[in-house]
Amino acid sequence: MTEKPYNLVAGQSRERLAALSDGVFAVAMTLLVLDLHTPVASTVHNERELLSALLVMAPRLLIYLGSFMTLGIFWVGQQTQLNLIERSSRDLTWIHLAFLAGVTLMPFSTALMAEFITLRSALVIYWANILVLGLILFASWRVAVSYKLLGNTEPELIRAVERRIVVAQTLYAAGAALCVISPLLSLAVIVATQLVYVIGPKAGLLSRI
Amino acid sequence: MTEKPYNLVAGQSRERLAALSDGVFAVAMTLLVLDLHTPVASTVHNERELLSALLVMAPRLLIYLGSFMTLGIFWVGQQTQLNLIERSSRDLTWIHLAFLAGVTLMPFSTALMAEFITLRSALVIYWANILVLGLILFASWRVAVSYKLLGNTEPELIRAVERRIVVAQTLYAAGAALCVISPLLSLAVIVATQLVYVIGPKAGLLSRI
Amino acid sequence: MTEKPYNLVAGQSRERLAALSDGVFAVAMTLLVLDLHTPVASTVHNERELLSALLVMAPRLLIYLGSFMTLGIFWVGQQTQLNLIERSSRDLTWIHLAFLAGVTLMPFSTALMAEFITLRSALVIYWANILVLGLILFASWRVAVSYKLLGNTEPELIRAVERRIVVAQTLYAAGAALCVISPLLSLAVIVATQLVYVIGPKAGLLSRI
Amino acid sequence: MTEKPYNLVAGQSRERLAALSDGVFAVAMTLLVLDLHTPVASTVHNERELLSALLVMAPRLLIYLGSFMTLGIFWVGQQTQLNLIERSSRDLTWIHLAFLAGVTLMPFSTALMAEFITLRSALVIYWANILVLGLILFASWRVAVSYKLLGNTEPELIRAVERRIVVAQTLYAAGAALCVISPLLSLAVIVATQLVYVIGPKAGLLSRI
Repeated sequence: MTEKPYNLVAGQSRERLAALSDGVFAVAMTLLVLDLHTPVASTVHNERELLSALLVMAPRLLIYLGSFMTLGIFWVGQQTQLNLIERSSRDLTWIHLAFLAGVTLMPFSTALMAEFITLRSALVIYWANILVLGLILFASWRVAVSYKLLGNTEPELIRAVERRIVVAQTLYAAGAALCVISPLLSLAVIVATQLVYVIGPKAGLLSRI
Repeated sequence: MTEKPYNLVAGQSRERLAALSDGVFAVAMTLLVLDLHTPVASTVHNERELLSALLVMAPRLLIYLGSFMTLGIFWVGQQTQLNLIERSSRDLTWIHLAFLAGVTLMPFSTALMAEFITLRSALVIYWANILVLGLILFASWRVAVSYKLLGNTEPELIRAVERRIVVAQTLYAAGAALCVISPLLSLAVIVATQLVYVIGPKAGLLSRI
Repeated sequence: MTEKPYNLVAGQSRERLAALSDGVFAVAMTLLVLDLHTPVASTVHNERELLSALLVMAPRLLIYLGSFMTLGIFWVGQQTQLNLIERSSRDLTWIHLAFLAGVTLMPFSTALMAEFITLRSALVIYWANILVLGLILFASWRVAVSYKLLGNTEPELIRAVERRIVVAQTLYAAGAALCVISPLLSLAVIVATQLVYVIGPKAGLLSRI
Repeated sequence: MTEKPYNLVAGQSRERLAALSDGVFAVAMTLLVLDLHTPVASTVHNERELLSALLVMAPRLLIYLGSFMTLGIFWVGQQTQLNLIERSSRDLTWIHLAFLAGVTLMPFSTALMAEFITLRSALVIYWANILVLGLILFASWRVAVSYKLLGNTEPELIRAVERRIVVAQTLYAAGAALCVISPLLSLAVIVATQLVYVIGPKAGLLSRI
């Protein structure tokens, strides 16, 4: 296999993978909130009109903050994995590039949900984006474990990383399923799940997962 | 607490937190000024029309440079904290992610103020954005101190960091309060405060805070 | 040659070249997908209309994912080269800056092809962008080799890097030539070539190149 | 001076300054070219119409590539300085933040010139942007030298850095002055100067500066 020399050296750098990831997350996070447009000047002539225009935007702001939190959760998750591996490999690099492609789609699916918050399809696409990110992160962990790219990592920790992804995605899926009742209810459950993951450990919640 | 293994390793990397922060600041800073649109070609036919179109944009340019300075101040402030801590923790990482969410909102609140410079609500939102950034930076410092994430840091320096945030935010709040008289006056006081922080130390000002 | 002192120190940093590259790739990758606009709210009133609006966008999404993969391939390729060189030089830095200029053009040529997918000129420009990236990467490798900027690298690996670029570009060119029959066929061959490069090594394909 | 403890630790990190700079340059470089919009689909129905629409864009593409080169020159220049200094300081950090503010204005002044290429004011603003970048870089070098932030640097190199900036800015200013004859002539001279700086050292030109 003469390809060996090339593929053995390609995509080895964990540091550059981390740097590219930080860049993609930074751009996606900033563009997310950038979709908030200022009210059109010609429709606002006084304080009251500005305040009511901003009030109309409030749900949109909440959705964007929610997506920022989602990206934050996945950034922490990916970072934790990359910190635990000792080196990357060509395959792992491509799995993480697929992960980053999913990250760049987040501003789109967020904008879609913000625009069509009452339609189920918009919520399902938003959830599908979260699901894809979770699946790829799960796959990247499995690959890192089976290719022995990890440094000295306790088996318990290996299982903890997997369990965490599975539990979170189960809750997200349950939330998404509620969209047969109401997309807004779905969104509320998904955001609540995320808040538990962000604030939970502090509050003593989630101590079993 | 079986969650320990995961949460002990999640979000530990000070380096990646710094890299993500630099990315978010870089994008926010560049997008800030990008909101300056060139005059519409169809309305400009000669030098005089171009110059007058640019003159109309001048206040907007000043506001954007002011926001760039604001982001610069907070970037230096965050950097100083991150340089002093020895490692991050999951909680500290999330506090800084909240800080970055505030940073990404800066282009929006800047554009809002540039568009509605005579309306108090626009100024109050702009100030609220600065306030939120200050509060989170204060919280992150307190957490870093109480969780003993700092390396060897003199107590005097610990107090200096806190005092600096409190004094600056007090001056910003006083400036914002002046918007009952005029939003422009508020803005002038806020920008003057920032200039003192940027140029002050050099000029021998601020030697007591 | 009094210029020596300056040009000997200018553009030496491999690390900063890598950091700038990661930044440019991150922004280009994110902006690529950002060109997906949500359907206009006034044209969508129910689930069916949203789904059909999204279906219309599907080919565009595929094209964007294809371009993301293209950028991923070139990012891995550039990274591999930069990992193998021990230091940069002023000339090599400028070659990589030219490479990055080509990267920043990718969102434009992608949008062009997405918009005019049935026109040959759009496909030729898209291919020309890929060709330029390949040529510059080939040139940068030759310069790195002849200026002895590489560390200890086996001759076989040096040839493998070159061969890889030449074979890939030959396949891309063959694909592009098919546009005399149909631009869509061209695109399919180009994307298939890329998929082989991404998935191939794993599947045992490409073992001879 | 009780402020000392804070200002002695604020803004010290050369690494984070470099990271922020790479981020700002990366975003500015990518956004520059992003201003190239694809022709409007409704005005293009066949190959000939697309080609002629692209031909109309050609000068704009050249201007954007020119600005990319400008940013490249300043990125190399700043990088060279940051590589030579051993640590940053609060003052130097703020000088570089001002430099980055100038960098973020480059997409605006480029778009302005692309839009109004026959008007002198547009060219003067473009040149003023380059001048500001040069002046700040000159100032940052002087500060680095006089604050003894450099490591062991030969006096000859110190002078070479300064001379280079002065000569380049003199040529740019001479080019800009030619706009009394024609803005296009000005632009040609400025771009020619830049090309000499990029390619010159290789070609044996510039051996005296």
